[in-house]
Amino acid sequence: MKIYDYFRSSAAYRVRIALNIKGLDPARDFIHLRHGDQHQGDYLAVNPQGLVPALVDGDGETHTQSLAIIEYLDEMHPEPPLLPADPTGRSRVRSLAFSIGCDLHPLNNMRVLKHLEERFGLTSEQVANDWYLHWINIGFLALERRLVAETSTGRFCHGDRLTLADCCLVPQVFNATRYAADMSSFPVIQRIYDACMAESAVSSAQPSAQPDAE
Amino acid sequence: MKIYDYFRSSAAYRVRIALNIKGLDPARDFIHLRHGDQHQGDYLAVNPQGLVPALVDGDGETHTQSLAIIEYLDEMHPEPPLLPADPTGRSRVRSLAFSIGCDLHPLNNMRVLKHLEERFGLTSEQVANDWYLHWINIGFLALERRLVAETSTGRFCHGDRLTLADCCLVPQVFNATRYAADMSSFPVIQRIYDACMAESAVSSAQPSAQPDAE
Repeated sequence: MKIYDYFRSSAAYRVRIALNIKGLDPARDFIHLRHGDQHQGDYLAVNPQGLVPALVDGDGETHTQSLAIIEYLDEMHPEPPLLPADPTGRSRVRSLAFSIGCDLHPLNNMRVLKHLEERFGLTSEQVANDWYLHWINIGFLALERRLVAETSTGRFCHGDRLTLADCCLVPQVFNATRYAADMSSFPVIQRIYDACMAESAVSSAQPSAQPDAE
Repeated sequence: MKIYDYFRSSAAYRVRIALNIKGLDPARDFIHLRHGDQHQGDYLAVNPQGLVPALVDGDGETHTQSLAIIEYLDEMHPEPPLLPADPTGRSRVRSLAFSIGCDLHPLNNMRVLKHLEERFGLTSEQVANDWYLHWINIGFLALERRLVAETSTGRFCHGDRLTLADCCLVPQVFNATRYAADMSSFPVIQRIYDACMAESAVSSAQPSAQPDAE
């Protein structure tokens, strides 16, 4: 098993957390997103979408999209599970994960921020304040409300075991703090993030702990 | 079972396709997104994220996020399946679905287009040409490459049965054509879209066929 990774990619970060929780330690190839490695023919042959992460399993099949990779890992290596056993719980965990993975993270991707600056001439300050933090605040406010209101919230997003939802929450909070988001409005998100980071499987997946960190 | 729906929501459209494939016909409540129904207290009590669709199942539990809802429907009503039986196939279908649901669709959501106009003063023409179609072209180009290169592509995105990937592809193409995207560069996507639309489960889910259509 091999993973194509980049220390600062939130999507790769999610998969690193999942791999650590499962006790899996695949070979790693580093794709430097700021140097544009993802647009080179070598990597496009692996993942035509030109995004990291990608996972090549023992049978040579390539898996892409972080959320699909984590579901695949959970099916192939069921212990410990990253989704609850009951369908309603599974649906909740996926919904929390997608509220980050679909409605929040894609808007603040590097390629999107770059496009805003290059195509529309926005300053990096406008992009940070009127875009990045705008979507963080909307997304985290809705997430916070759910985590407060829903009784399945526990030490982590869903009960007291790490799930797919936590794999998504941690990188998103990590990035938000890089942009100096005010987390005081989101105490439950912050509490869960802290609880996750107290787990070595999570903390050892953080960007600064990766071999390609700068 | 009840679904909160809006005829023009791509996410609701995905779930309508899945429900039709499963032969399920839940009660429907219409949330008029352009009138702002999604921000009213009544609906926020159902879905604090203020997005459609939401599905309330017989046990009273609310399910949100279209992709989580479809996975839930597939677990509770397994026939006909919306994911292949083999883990590699499941991973591919999810990856195709997420390449639309995470990397493409969220960027072109109504609230995002509105924000570009209101906060940055972009004209609707700039938003259409330099944003909407920009991401459509990048996303569809990558998707087209995969559908061409990967041998599991069939009459539909994955073989000859409708899957979660088709539930995502159809609304995305439908919307792209509303913005007059040039589909001639994406012949496989167009072919699969046409094959999907030849299925009554798919065509009857289209916006213009809904009771709340305008």
